[in-house]
Formats: sequence, structure tokens, C-alpha cells
Amino acid sequence: MTATQTNLPIDARRIAEIVKGLARITEPDRPYTRRAFTPLFLEGRAFLEEHFRAAGLDTRIDAAGNLIGRRKGRKPALGTIMLGSHSDTVPEGGRFDGIAGVAAALEVARSLADAGIELDHDLEIVDFLAEEVSIFGVSCVGSRGMAGLIPDGWLSRTHDELTLRQGIVEAGGDPSRLPSLKRSDIKAFLELHIEQGPVLEAERLDIGVVTAISGITRIEIIVEGQADHAGTTPMGRRRDALVAASRLVLEIEKLGFAHAAGEGHFTATVGEFEIEPNAANVVPSRARLLIDARAELRSQMEVFISDIEALAARIAEETGVAITPPKVISDNHPTPGDPWVLATLEAACGRVGARHRLMASGAGHDTAWMGRITKAAMIFIPCRDGRSHAPEEWAENDDIALGAAVLFEAVRRLDGQLQEKT
Amino acid sequence: MTATQTNLPIDARRIAEIVKGLARITEPDRPYTRRAFTPLFLEGRAFLEEHFRAAGLDTRIDAAGNLIGRRKGRKPALGTIMLGSHSDTVPEGGRFDGIAGVAAALEVARSLADAGIELDHDLEIVDFLAEEVSIFGVSCVGSRGMAGLIPDGWLSRTHDELTLRQGIVEAGGDPSRLPSLKRSDIKAFLELHIEQGPVLEAERLDIGVVTAISGITRIEIIVEGQADHAGTTPMGRRRDALVAASRLVLEIEKLGFAHAAGEGHFTATVGEFEIEPNAANVVPSRARLLIDARAELRSQMEVFISDIEALAARIAEETGVAITPPKVISDNHPTPGDPWVLATLEAACGRVGARHRLMASGAGHDTAWMGRITKAAMIFIPCRDGRSHAPEEWAENDDIALGAAVLFEAVRRLDGQLQEKT
Repeated sequence: MTATQTNLPIDARRIAEIVKGLARITEPDRPYTRRAFTPLFLEGRAFLEEHFRAAGLDTRIDAAGNLIGRRKGRKPALGTIMLGSHSDTVPEGGRFDGIAGVAAALEVARSLADAGIELDHDLEIVDFLAEEVSIFGVSCVGSRGMAGLIPDGWLSRTHDELTLRQGIVEAGGDPSRLPSLKRSDIKAFLELHIEQGPVLEAERLDIGVVTAISGITRIEIIVEGQADHAGTTPMGRRRDALVAASRLVLEIEKLGFAHAAGEGHFTATVGEFEIEPNAANVVPSRARLLIDARAELRSQMEVFISDIEALAARIAEETGVAITPPKVISDNHPTPGDPWVLATLEAACGRVGARHRLMASGAGHDTAWMGRITKAAMIFIPCRDGRSHAPEEWAENDDIALGAAVLFEAVRRLDGQLQEKT
Repeated sequence: MTATQTNLPIDARRIAEIVKGLARITEPDRPYTRRAFTPLFLEGRAFLEEHFRAAGLDTRIDAAGNLIGRRKGRKPALGTIMLGSHSDTVPEGGRFDGIAGVAAALEVARSLADAGIELDHDLEIVDFLAEEVSIFGVSCVGSRGMAGLIPDGWLSRTHDELTLRQGIVEAGGDPSRLPSLKRSDIKAFLELHIEQGPVLEAERLDIGVVTAISGITRIEIIVEGQADHAGTTPMGRRRDALVAASRLVLEIEKLGFAHAAGEGHFTATVGEFEIEPNAANVVPSRARLLIDARAELRSQMEVFISDIEALAARIAEETGVAITPPKVISDNHPTPGDPWVLATLEAACGRVGARHRLMASGAGHDTAWMGRITKAAMIFIPCRDGRSHAPEEWAENDDIALGAAVLFEAVRRLDGQLQEKT
């Protein structure tokens, strides 16, 4: 079943036009790169704003640098329904991560207009600023800003003599107005995003209705061995930091498998790993590991953190190297999708004939921040081989269009149900 | 037993003066750094040359940039006995590696003069150029040059727009004369060096008589997994290059232990280890390992190399990641010490009352190259905790002096025995 087979007024070609148009706005020698706070990003924004306007939306940049297009409702006092995602990419990223969600949201607005449907609520389409880890080393700048949750000190973060504060100004935002930005008028938020994983494709499903966005906890472990001459130090007299760190990597993977066999989504990855002095003829003296752990269920993450503490102590004892107590660098709790919005999304899937399943998101998303201020939920569409953050990232245009149809249907239902509810 | 307790004319204070004098010639903010081809190295050379001259030696720089001080013998036609080591350091190195050997060699020449002893052979004291891995990425430049074994292409190696050829010129050498440098007049070569390992200290011995300098083989392994999103890719669907590489590290260590339990000296170390993309939220796609393996017995190294090939194939099969066939990057065979010179050194130990053992060197040394053109052997003296290539590297001055006494005695014996032998 594809969108073009439904009777819904989604125009898949217009979605393709947005995706392709943004794909052309990339660093030419390393596609697809359009990082936030770069001239290319602003070029992409100008392209989007033009299409927002052509769709009859009133556009503005809010204090946090988010591009917003508004379609007035009949009863603006009811508040706003918001749809959107982000248009920035990682370096050498893909054409769909975030972008598919912005294109689908815009298409919902256009389809509503084409069909002559007026909503009671205001409808806003948003392109959040800097969802990906940006040049300032932080992510979800725009959605955090909209939720009033930009941490103290972030605005002073610096990259190449540019502060995040100045970066937001260059994107058209106004950091001085951030303290009063927190939105209370948004009654529901929906985001479409590529799955960035292999599940929907493997199960030949159209839509994942996202029950929760996993919490992300980062844990750093430092292993301190001793630098010795690789040729003269007998095997039995070494305190090799790399050998101890390698044991940690294998045990962390085992823990990851054990927790993943439990109830909710769980992953554990050692993504950063460096040794010192990293010289051919020296026994490694130091290793640093950064664990990225994701859990749908907070209780599971808490068990994992204490598992890691016990593991580090055990490996230190068994190998004779020093291991500093694992340090939790960041620790974001899971965000459950709003149950009522989830039910609406499932009903919308049924209406448009999209085969769907419930699933958790292992990746972080703007929806996690929007969930702090409104009823928020998201849907996934399949992507090829589960790949993302890479040039080969791919989603079928018809899959995006079918997702847009689900959003279209959900928005119509929410527009009515939100009034009954209040 | 220390040198000061013997009746030999070694003056330990003069050795200390050389060691301390060179220690003062260091990059002030990262002691002890006096790398070859830097102004500080030439400053150290000037200090040494002054002391060579003050000891009555005729000094010169040979074509390969080695500083040589000569004491004429009564029968120069017999050829030359040479003693020496090197005065360059690694970055943040120590005060004794190489330097102790140059200071001891110079002290032998001075003690012979003090004692009014004339040798039949010419005696030469040498400070080899660039024994440590230099700014050009290569080592043992001077001793290779003296042995006529500088590989093709090395002279064109470049660092910061300086070629090795120019570097040798700046050190006073003459690369155009290198092809005719290979020395045939040297009848014996002796080197004193700190052990750079913990054995002599642990066994409370004065001298290690070095039976062989281990061969050094470097093997590179590349692990190719797949970059996937760390949050969205289920544990069971990954091809994590770091996990596979960690298994390699542990298995390589096991192999190192197994071979070390055999007959000769053996070590295996993964000293260089990097992963890509090394990003917190990405499953590692690539890992590179560089193994440093050292074997006293060539046959053992050959078994190890084939063990590593089998290991890489096995881990690739078990983990599902691709592992390129291990690549031997460099492969230097072991150099046995000259048996006759070794016997002379053992006899000299007995004469001066130095408790000694036979042992192999796990580190490379200039002696390995001198062994290609003459009867060569070396002795080790203890160093604290086996540490070297670090600021805390330490050798007791009396231990250096006792080693110098062994060299003194060995030179006298060689001077007579070499004539009988010819």
C-alpha cells in the first residue's frame, strides 16, 4: 500500500521536490553535509522558507532560531497543532534524516489547503534548529529552546570564535527572548522520521508508532596501566591498559545483549575508544572508553549503570590495572509518547491502510523535548538497511508520502478530539 | 660490588659529569628531550666533542654524521676496536638510554690514558647519529650508515621541509660519501646500555651479557565492520569493528604469553590501536591494530606470524566482520652477539667481580647494525623499575661505572686476543 494508492490528497511528487532540493544544498565534496550554523544551512532554510510561503504559510523565525510556517485556524484561541522535524545534517550525513519529516509536515499543510479543509486549531510546520550534534558539541538546540530547556552556559559555548548565542542570531533567532519562549499554546506535536534502524524494513511494515524515545546515558571509563618498553618488559610484568580495556569492551557488549533480551529497547555501544601513548613500541599506559547506552525503561538503565560499576571494579582486580569509577557524563531519561496521541496515530494508520507496529526509538529526537511541553508523539518510516548518518541513507518517497498521509489523518482527528477533550 | 670498590682506574665521577652535563641540554619544558636533527642535539654533540678532545681523542664526524673520537694504537694496521652508543633521546625520554653507553665508552678511553696503557689497536669512541626513531620516522641512522645499510630512499625522507640528507649535513656528515663509508677496519665493537627492562634489578645482578638482540616484526591488522547508529541498531544486527578488534587484542596477548613460555625472549604488544569514526553514537566501523613482536629466535617469530594469520581468519569468521590478512610492515631478524666477544665479556665480568647473567635484548640497538660488519656484542646494566623512554628513567652511577670497568677489561683482552686470532 502506498500513498499514491490512497484517496488522500498527499502529493508524493511535492515531497520529492523538497527532499531533492535540499539534497542539492550540500558541501559538494562531501555529500550530504548541511550543518547547522553554516552558510549552507541558511541556504537550505531560505529554500524551505520559500516553499513554506508558496504553500500559503506565514513564516517567522522564533527566538531559538526555529523556522515556523503558520496556517491560521478558525478558532485560534484553541491553540496550535505543530508538525515538523529538522533540516540540518551531520557531516557526511544523509538526505532523509530530519528532512523527510519537514517535507512531510509541509505536505500535510499543502494537502489540507488543496482539499479546502480548514482546521479549528492553528497549524504550525517547524524546522527545528540544530537537532544533530552541532559545531558547538550540543544537539536539539531549537526544540530545547521551544521547551524552555536550554541548559545554563550553553549560549556561551564557542566554536572558531563564534558563540552559540551569535549562531542563533545568525539563524534569525533572538537569544535575549529565549527566557520567555517556552510555548504553552501547543496542544499536540507530531514528527515523522526515518527509523534509522532495520526493523520496519525487515518486517515489511510501513509505519512504526513510537511508544517512547529511549533515554541516553553516556558513561566514561578511564583505564590507567603503565607505559613500558614493548620489547624489554616481559609479558608477565605488564600493566597493559589496552588489554584491560579490551576486556571491558567485550563484557560491555555481553551486558548489552543481556539487557536487550529484557522487556524494552536496549543498546550499549563503546563508540569512542582511544589509547595512550599509541606508539608501536610502548605498552599502552592509558585507555579511555565512552559507553553510549540507550534504554526505553529507566529501571533497566539504572541496573545497567550499576552493572558497569561492578564490571570496572572486577576487571581492575583481575588485571591489576587501575580503573577509575565509571563516570556518568550525561543521563537523559526516556520520554514516553503521549498515550492518547499514540492511539490517534494508530487509528490514523488503520484509516490510511498503513501496516504498523509499536516500537521504541533508540535515537534521540526533537519530539523528546516537545514532550516536555505538550502531547507529543512520532512515527517512523522504513529506511534502507537501517542506515543513517551516511550518504547511502535512503527512504522510498512513497514511504514518506504514506507517513505524511498518516500525519494528515492524525491532524484532522486531533483537531476535533482536542476540542472534545478540553 | 661497585666500581669504586675495584682496583680498576674507572672514575665514576667523570661518568656522572657527562650524564649530568647532557641532562642539562634538554627542552626545558619537557625533560629529557634532545632529539636528533635539532639544535639541542648539536649542542649536546658540542659538549661531547669538547670532552672527547679534553680526553686527548682526535675527533671527527664521519659521512653518516657519527661523532668519533680516536686514540691511536701502537699498531694501527691491526685495525680498530670501537666502543659507543648514542646521545639522542626520544621526546620526553630519559637521561641514560644511550647516554650511559657514550659516557662509559669515553671513560674507558680516559682510564686507559690515566693508567698509561697503550693499546696495539686504534680505539674509537662513537656517538651514533639518531639511534632513536627520529623526526624522519626512522632509527639507527648512524650505525646503519657505518654498516653501509641505509635503505634506498631514506635520504629523501622529509620532515618540515628538511630532508634526512640535509639533516645529516647539518650534523656534520656528508651523505655523498655514504656509499664508501662501510667500515672494514673495525675488529670489534662493544656497547653498554641500560637494560630497559626489570630483570637485572629483580635478580640483583650487575651486568647482562647480551646473547642476541631480538628481531622486531611489526604486523598491521585492519578490521572492517559497519558504521551503524548506536541507538537504533539492535545488538544482534551489528558488525562492530571494536568488539572484533578487542577479541584480537586479548588473543594476541595470549599468543605472546604462549611464545614467551618457550625457549628464547619473546614479547607481543598491540601498541597502536585506533578506531573509526570514534564517535559516541556510532557503532565503530573500522579498527587498526599494530602488533610489535620481538623474538630472540627467528623460528619462533615465523610460527607467531602464521599464528596471527590463523587468528585473524578465525575472529573474522566468528564475528562476521571483515579482517584484512595481517600485513607484515617490517621484519628485522634477530642479531646474535659474537660468541667469542661474549666469552671475553663474561671473563671480564669475572675479573672485575660483576655478577652477571646471559640475556637477550628485547630492544633494538646500534649493536645490531654493527654486528653486520664486525664482531659485536653488548652489555646491559640495571635500571630502576625497568623504566626507560620516560623522565623517571634511572640508572645508578656506580652501576654505569662497574659496566665501564667491564668494558675496560674487555678492551684490554680483545686488544691481545684479536692479534692471536689473526
